[in-house]
Formats: sequence, structure tokens, C-alpha cells
Amino acid sequence: MKILVLGGDGYLGWPTALHLSGAGHQVAVADNFARRSYDFEMGVDSLVPIESLQTRVRVWHDLTGQAIGYYVGDLTDADFTYHIVRDFAPDAVVHYAEQRAAPYSMVDRKHAVYTQVNNVVGNLNLLYAIAEINPEIHLVKLGTMGEYGTPNIDIEEGWLEIEHKGRTDRVLYPKRPGSFYHLSKVHDSHNIEFACRIWGIRSTDLNQGVVYGQQTAETARDDRLATRFDYDAVFGTVLNRFVIQAVLGRPLTVYGNGTQTRGLIELRDTVRCIQLACENPADRGEFRVFNQITELMSLQEMADTIAGACPDEVTICHVENPRVELENHHYNVVHSGLVELGLEPRLLSDTLIESLFEITKRYAHRARPEAMIPTIEWRKPSSVISN
Amino acid sequence: MKILVLGGDGYLGWPTALHLSGAGHQVAVADNFARRSYDFEMGVDSLVPIESLQTRVRVWHDLTGQAIGYYVGDLTDADFTYHIVRDFAPDAVVHYAEQRAAPYSMVDRKHAVYTQVNNVVGNLNLLYAIAEINPEIHLVKLGTMGEYGTPNIDIEEGWLEIEHKGRTDRVLYPKRPGSFYHLSKVHDSHNIEFACRIWGIRSTDLNQGVVYGQQTAETARDDRLATRFDYDAVFGTVLNRFVIQAVLGRPLTVYGNGTQTRGLIELRDTVRCIQLACENPADRGEFRVFNQITELMSLQEMADTIAGACPDEVTICHVENPRVELENHHYNVVHSGLVELGLEPRLLSDTLIESLFEITKRYAHRARPEAMIPTIEWRKPSSVISN
Repeated sequence: MKILVLGGDGYLGWPTALHLSGAGHQVAVADNFARRSYDFEMGVDSLVPIESLQTRVRVWHDLTGQAIGYYVGDLTDADFTYHIVRDFAPDAVVHYAEQRAAPYSMVDRKHAVYTQVNNVVGNLNLLYAIAEINPEIHLVKLGTMGEYGTPNIDIEEGWLEIEHKGRTDRVLYPKRPGSFYHLSKVHDSHNIEFACRIWGIRSTDLNQGVVYGQQTAETARDDRLATRFDYDAVFGTVLNRFVIQAVLGRPLTVYGNGTQTRGLIELRDTVRCIQLACENPADRGEFRVFNQITELMSLQEMADTIAGACPDEVTICHVENPRVELENHHYNVVHSGLVELGLEPRLLSDTLIESLFEITKRYAHRARPEAMIPTIEWRKPSSVISN
Repeated sequence: MKILVLGGDGYLGWPTALHLSGAGHQVAVADNFARRSYDFEMGVDSLVPIESLQTRVRVWHDLTGQAIGYYVGDLTDADFTYHIVRDFAPDAVVHYAEQRAAPYSMVDRKHAVYTQVNNVVGNLNLLYAIAEINPEIHLVKLGTMGEYGTPNIDIEEGWLEIEHKGRTDRVLYPKRPGSFYHLSKVHDSHNIEFACRIWGIRSTDLNQGVVYGQQTAETARDDRLATRFDYDAVFGTVLNRFVIQAVLGRPLTVYGNGTQTRGLIELRDTVRCIQLACENPADRGEFRVFNQITELMSLQEMADTIAGACPDEVTICHVENPRVELENHHYNVVHSGLVELGLEPRLLSDTLIESLFEITKRYAHRARPEAMIPTIEWRKPSSVISN
């Protein structure tokens, strides 16, 4: 298949491109390097050093003989979006190319507006490009489990069979997300479902949980193929951040009482899920939703697990929760769709954690520890972005 | 009370400003005249001639001694939005200032993106201005019944008590809107609910039905206070358009089989609803939703009612439905919230229709009939905006 990976220079986009290329697909990536620019704004850098996209692509070609094409540009530029869809003529488009951090969207008005405009407009342009150029193209869109919030009922996969006053319907699962970033993905999901309805587009919306891990079979082949690994309070996902704090001998900072439960998924399962979604396309007109997680854990359980696996002494501290979120809540999530397509979930284990410790130790000297302290407060309309 | 009416130069905004001023409130309006500009793009004009905002305000002052302040600017310009909220220091902000036509949003990619960016960013800027300047301000936001779509269960007022797998929750009513415009309002509603949750803003989201009518007690005092009356296929609301077609001796164009049912409300009830919402503010942190309609009718029933009331012969024709919408559907809507606050609904009657015939006849010579023929097709990603 020909697969276009948007945001293909990012934490997940790059390993996904490699994995799809390694699996025999013809792959191209597109990126505007927004993610690298956010680092300049925050004065941080990926813990694991990463090469330029051009070097990455060259090294992969040298190692495997496989070419990965690349386009440099921005999806909010419709000319660019139409160009890449026309030029590469993909069978599937994997869309990671959005601002992806909840705290970044909550810095202040400008960051909230940037996040929603960037994400919603890029996605709208992509929907129109597909509808106008080739509505057979399968859109594989990255959503987030955070779209659902923490309802007091079980979380289904995107749709909900409902009974009300003696009548029934199948409705889009009601969403109550927890940041302007998460809201942008809810907006996207609504726009995509509508595009499926009016134009007969085929789409898969992947509501992904918190991703952890740093290596895949493909990125591990050469240091120059490494993907980024963020440890800062803005872009560092919680489990990765705990690992880095443990290695640096700093307390693991649990927000609030730590009973907040989240869905998790390991990086190698993420890239496998994308492959399964691409190879098993949605039907024309179908808005298909999968919950892309493999297990559920509370923040406290994640911290305890890291602490237990670490050979050194680890302390866990609770800091005031900068977010507005329920800490004690029901959380039961259906996530069988991807398993039915063939996913064999990896669960968080000592082996997985140890491999993360190894990588982290190797690059621990690159960390700027103050960047791990949260500065962005949900209750305030304006915060500083970093220490 | 001090009430700021955003979009105060528009079809509903202007009569609302007058009504609130007439009721003794201190009123200012803000507008960027986008609505007047769309007319240039389409080559049409309000059937009823309207004065400039400056003249309108002056005439109202001459007649009543009441001053209505005005600000000219765009809510997507955050400096403007913060300025007006700071300068006027309102108790309530009535927010009409959005692109409000479903067909306009469905012209092509540019119009879809414009609609969503204009509406979502303007509303985000307003939420931040309220949060930063004075979170006591009550936001009265115009939504649309079209946010709900046509679910197979009864439509409640914004929230839904739900039972699923033996557990219960109160969730945001699941939405499945029918255009990129309607989607923009769904995005707004989600953003507002979140702002209430994190910043304790007070808000009322008014999911309004199809408005008909042209006069209020206040606008009827002088021709120069008239509000606009749109008859074109893009901005003309369906019942108003039927009246104009009847007066012009042209067939009433029902889209599809006409069994699509919609909620209706008369202009004078709209302005009364806004007054009731302002005078009975939501609580701090409350996302309050009312369905702002007074009755339900199918398109066919509307056409039959107009035909029955018209002294001349009227033909009704069915044209291919340019929209993608269910034609045979359940539609039962709870709309008791505003009645509980004191609304006494006007129902569509011969008297109401006759007054509309009168106005329409007076200005029938101004109509460009070909502008009533729909050109914008939902199934195509790109259409021409007018004949």
C-alpha cells in the first residue's frame, strides 16, 4: 500500500513511518517541524538526540534499501495539503500532524487558539483534499482517549447504543474533554464523522491512550533512527516522565492524589495498531473508532510500578494538581476493536521498564530537571510555559 | 443591566439590542459587518432596506432618548474583544457574532474553514476575555437546534441523563450536526462547557430553531429601525423564504419530500428569550442550555400553512434536496426551560403570516428571484455560491 504519514517527523510519526516501510508499504512523510520548534520556545530538547528528517530518511535507505519520501510543509496551507495528496496518491493517510500536548494548549489564549486552529484547519483541509482528489483514500486519524473525559459509564469505541424514554439510537459517544487540546480532537472527530456522512469518506479515528516507550524494532537498528523522547512537563507523557525522574534520582511527581486512571499503550503497539488500521480499511462512509490502549492504570500505580522496577531508591511525591480533572472516578474502557484485527497487546512489565531505564540512563546528562516541574495551571487563563 | 450584544447589526442582533434597550437595560453592540459583506459576495440584498448602524443608533436615540453604544471590529481580533469587554464592562454578553448560514459553510473548503475559524476563534477569544477580565459576566451564546441533528430519541435541553450497563451519568447531549456551520456551534458548545468547568464562567447556550418574522415592537416604530430580511437560498431562513416566494407568485421550493421537521420561533419571541436569559443569569460554573423554539413543523406543513394563508394561488414544488439530511425521522424536542422563565410562546398563525405578507409585498420589487434557487450541494465538496 501507499501510505502517507502526516507528522512523520514526530515521536510516533517517525517510528510509524519506519514500521510501515519495514512491513513493505510504500511510505512518504510530511512535517512542518512544529514539534521541534516548540522545544525552542520551552528551552528543552528531546532526551534522546534525534537526527534531521533528511538524515533519518537517508540512514533508513542505506540500511534497508527502502526509500521514504518526504514533504516539508503545513497542513493549514491548503495548497500544500492538496499537493501532497495529489503527488503521492496514497491509499491511506495516517494523520498525526497536530499539536498534541494538553498543557501546551492551556498556556494562554494564544496557545489555545493556535492549537484549535492548527488542528481543526489542518484536518479540514485534509478532509477536503481527500473528498476532492480521491474519496477512496482511507483516513487514519489520531484522536485521544482524553476526548471522552471520565464519564460515570463505561467508555465504548466512539459510538454508544442508547435507550431514552422508550426509544433507541446509536449516537456518537458523548464527549467531555479536559483541555483545549483534547477539545480540538473532539472537534476533529465531529468534522470527520460529518465528512463520512456527506462525501462517503472512509475513516478510522484512533482514540489513543498515554503512549510510553522509546524504541521499536526499526528505530533500534541505528542510533540515527531514534525517535524523540520528551521529559518536560509540557510534552513528556506521564509514564516516560516518571522513568526519567526515577533515573535522575528525583521524586516522581504525581498530580493530585494519583487515583486518576488512564489508558496506556507501548510505542511498538502504537505502530502495530496503525499498520492494522491501514491494512484493514474502514468502509466507504464509515466513521470507525477504536480505543487504542492496551491496559488501564492509575497514576499512583504507574509511579509504584516504576519505583518497584528501579534498582535505586525512588521517592514518590504528590504535587498540587495543575489540571482540572476528577481524581476519583469510574473508568472502564472497551478496547477490543484492534485486538479483533490482530493486535497482541504488550503489557507494562519489568522488561519494558528496564529497557526504558537503559535508554534514559544513557542520556540522563541531557536533562534540564527544572523543565519537569509543571508551570501551566488549568484554573488560570494565563501561565508561563516553562521554568 | 449592562448588556453587550455581539453581532448587534444583524437580523436578530439589532432587534435584540433595541428590545433590551427598550426594556431599560444599558446596551452596546459590536459588529464587523461581515453579514453585509456576504451580500456583496452573493449579489443580493436584504429584501427590506436597512440603514447603517450609525443611523439606526441615532434614530433610536432620537425616538426614545436611549443611547446604544457601538463598537466596530472583529472578535477574532483578540485586542478588540478584550477592549470591548473592558471598556463597556457588561453584566451579560449576548453572542450572535458568528457566520450563521449552513449553506454558506458548505460552498467549498474556504467557506468551511472561514466559518469554523471565525466562529470558534471569536468565541474562544470571548471566553478568555471574560475569564481574564471578569468571570462574573454571563455569556448568552446563540447555538442552534441543528447541533443535535435528528436523533431517534427525544432531544433534551443540552444534557442527557443516561443509563448504560447498569451505571448512570448526566452527559452532554450527543450531537450529530448537518453542516460545517452547525459543527462550528457544536465546537463552541464544547469549548464553553469546558470554560465553565475550569474557570467557573456562567453561560447560557441557546439552541435556537428556525427564526421567522421581520418586526418587533421596537423596529416597527420607524422604517429606519427595520432589521434585515433575507430571501436568498443561502441566508434566507425557510419560512421567510416561503413567504417571499408566495408573494412573488413563485412556487414554494420544498427540499426533498418535506417531511423534515424543524423547531420554529418568531422574531419577537427570540428577543424576549434573550431578555429572559439575561435577566435570569446562569450560576457561576453552570453551562445552561435551552432549546429556543416554540413549535415544531415539517417543511411541508410550513409550505401548506403559507399557501393556505396567501390570498393568491400558491404552488408548492419539491426540488432535489441539496442537503444531506434525514427526511423521515423522529423529532420530539423538550423546550420548557425558557417557558419556565416566563416565555409566552407565539405560534404561527394567520395574523403572523399576514403581517409578513404585508412587509414582503411592500418590498417585493427588490427581490432577485434567481437568488432563491439553491446552488450549494452538500454532496459535492465545491459549489458556486449563487446564480
